[in-house]
Amino acid sequence: MAEPVPVAVTMGEPAGIGTEVVLKSYARFAAEPPGNAPVFFLIDDPARVEKIVRTVGVGVRVGSIERAADAAAVFPAALPVLPLARGVTDALLHVTPGTPSGATADAVTGSIDQAVALCLAGEAAGVATAPIHKKVLLDAGFSYPGHTEYLGALTDDAALPQGFVRGPVMMLAAGRFRVVPVTIHERLADVPSLLTADRIVRTGMVTAQALRRDFGVREPRLAVTGLNPHAGEGGAMGTEERDVIEPAIAALREQGVEAFGPIPADTLFHEEARVAYDAALAMYHDQALIPIKTVAFHDAVNVTLGLPVVRTSPDHGTAFPIAGRGVARADSMTGAILQAARMAAARAAFAS
Amino acid sequence: MAEPVPVAVTMGEPAGIGTEVVLKSYARFAAEPPGNAPVFFLIDDPARVEKIVRTVGVGVRVGSIERAADAAAVFPAALPVLPLARGVTDALLHVTPGTPSGATADAVTGSIDQAVALCLAGEAAGVATAPIHKKVLLDAGFSYPGHTEYLGALTDDAALPQGFVRGPVMMLAAGRFRVVPVTIHERLADVPSLLTADRIVRTGMVTAQALRRDFGVREPRLAVTGLNPHAGEGGAMGTEERDVIEPAIAALREQGVEAFGPIPADTLFHEEARVAYDAALAMYHDQALIPIKTVAFHDAVNVTLGLPVVRTSPDHGTAFPIAGRGVARADSMTGAILQAARMAAARAAFAS
Repeated sequence: MAEPVPVAVTMGEPAGIGTEVVLKSYARFAAEPPGNAPVFFLIDDPARVEKIVRTVGVGVRVGSIERAADAAAVFPAALPVLPLARGVTDALLHVTPGTPSGATADAVTGSIDQAVALCLAGEAAGVATAPIHKKVLLDAGFSYPGHTEYLGALTDDAALPQGFVRGPVMMLAAGRFRVVPVTIHERLADVPSLLTADRIVRTGMVTAQALRRDFGVREPRLAVTGLNPHAGEGGAMGTEERDVIEPAIAALREQGVEAFGPIPADTLFHEEARVAYDAALAMYHDQALIPIKTVAFHDAVNVTLGLPVVRTSPDHGTAFPIAGRGVARADSMTGAILQAARMAAARAAFAS
Repeated sequence: MAEPVPVAVTMGEPAGIGTEVVLKSYARFAAEPPGNAPVFFLIDDPARVEKIVRTVGVGVRVGSIERAADAAAVFPAALPVLPLARGVTDALLHVTPGTPSGATADAVTGSIDQAVALCLAGEAAGVATAPIHKKVLLDAGFSYPGHTEYLGALTDDAALPQGFVRGPVMMLAAGRFRVVPVTIHERLADVPSLLTADRIVRTGMVTAQALRRDFGVREPRLAVTGLNPHAGEGGAMGTEERDVIEPAIAALREQGVEAFGPIPADTLFHEEARVAYDAALAMYHDQALIPIKTVAFHDAVNVTLGLPVVRTSPDHGTAFPIAGRGVARADSMTGAILQAARMAAARAAFAS
């Protein structure tokens, strides 16, 4: 039997809690019976990781590997770490937890580059990214607004299946509770003008296709929120529902997507309401993230849809104030690795 | 020992589920040991209520009373119903469930007028309003956007305690989870320009004063959300936090209110986060209502703060599609009556 293709986990910001939550995720998976947990490897410097093991006090062994294919063999005994292709610098070996430095920016982006290249080569099943610190990367010359856009650029030349719409589209998932904001990191004042039928349709198409390909949902149902209170209440509190959202829903339905709405957002997210859909398309950041983080604050996972590679990440940042103290909760990172493995398996089954 | 002052419950739209959920609330309270449940009376036509008892199949006896003070004596044996001061019309006796009519509009508003007058006279402890249907009232000449504004107008001449800021301010409450939207039934596009520091401060003052006077919270803590994703992330995604919300929080603190924020709204509403505050001040409708209705869809109660009278209402509408069928859930109406009684008790204790 072939070894499973492992998930690649990136280093993330070395001054943050990334390594700690990866180590804790490994410890949790390693305690499972073989075959129950996903196999993954970390792209980082093995000596640096050993150091973090001691700093945060997690009883995990570290095993350096030469290639991704060795991860499965090493995994039962040690966390497989694939060294950084760009090598290790002195700065990387002397990171102060909580204090990011531009001197390690190249290693951070290098780890992402390596992970994506391995995914595109079929050597990694997907990538779960540890949190980065945008400011330090931007100051060092990185020119993308964030992880997601960078992964989009790295995979821009790779093909998607015929008829698939390219993302990136952001989803937050906690079990079967899945939300997708149509606009994301935008000022609230800009949301109404940014919200076009085309944007909703593209986001809905990517979401529906990802639900089929990556989540094993055969006939995805998308609930679409309104923008205004009470979904505009028939025009009394806004017209975007009539002018933008309803036409978008109609267009999605014409393309065979079972989309429905617009639904008043405050009535869509309680447990009973959620059985009616596989993902909720929300019009803006907080409308999507408030409900899922209210019920699943620690274990919601960020998933990027519509890319040639499977990509997940924890729904938290570098958490500098607690970095290096051993107190970080690993739930979201653990969930991100697990989610990447499940999506990769669904994608493989879909293709075959 | 003096009989407790009863809560007045208004008729609401007679073609809706109002009477049914009031009957079910009575049945629930009547099953409690005496003294455990609040005493209330309904302002309606007793013969009409008898008819609904049969239609919806709730085994409740109806007792006509002549004045509010009789409610406590009648309550153990029957739902006390105070007849409408304006009398009963033929239209009111022949309402078709699900089909509202302008012919009953006068009775609907009359029931509210009576309840408020009884509260102001000290004969009722507070008012819990059954849902109305705005359109039919507006068509019949009612000139208020809703219940809340009408209650504000009816109580405009009544005094508030020295130093108290006048509302109305809307709160949704489910146990100790309390949210207050600063802007309410506004188009989302209008929210950023409507959001002023003065509006946030007034809303925060009314909320803090109500928490002390009506909820027995001695030192109310108010968590204030940001408007933009990540509360603007230091200006990168919006400046309203810096220009409007932060000055408002500072002004509240100067007036002795323990307000803090702005907090990214998606991080504020999970169970662990909620222990840090007594009410969350949200910037707009969905930001406040999504989290509370996600976790407490059926039992969240609408509370109007900053009025001379205690006022609550269920957080649902007339539900015409299920009116007259006996299937309506009474949780929110029951909660509204209970909440009104508790607030009235807290207010009485505060005054003494």
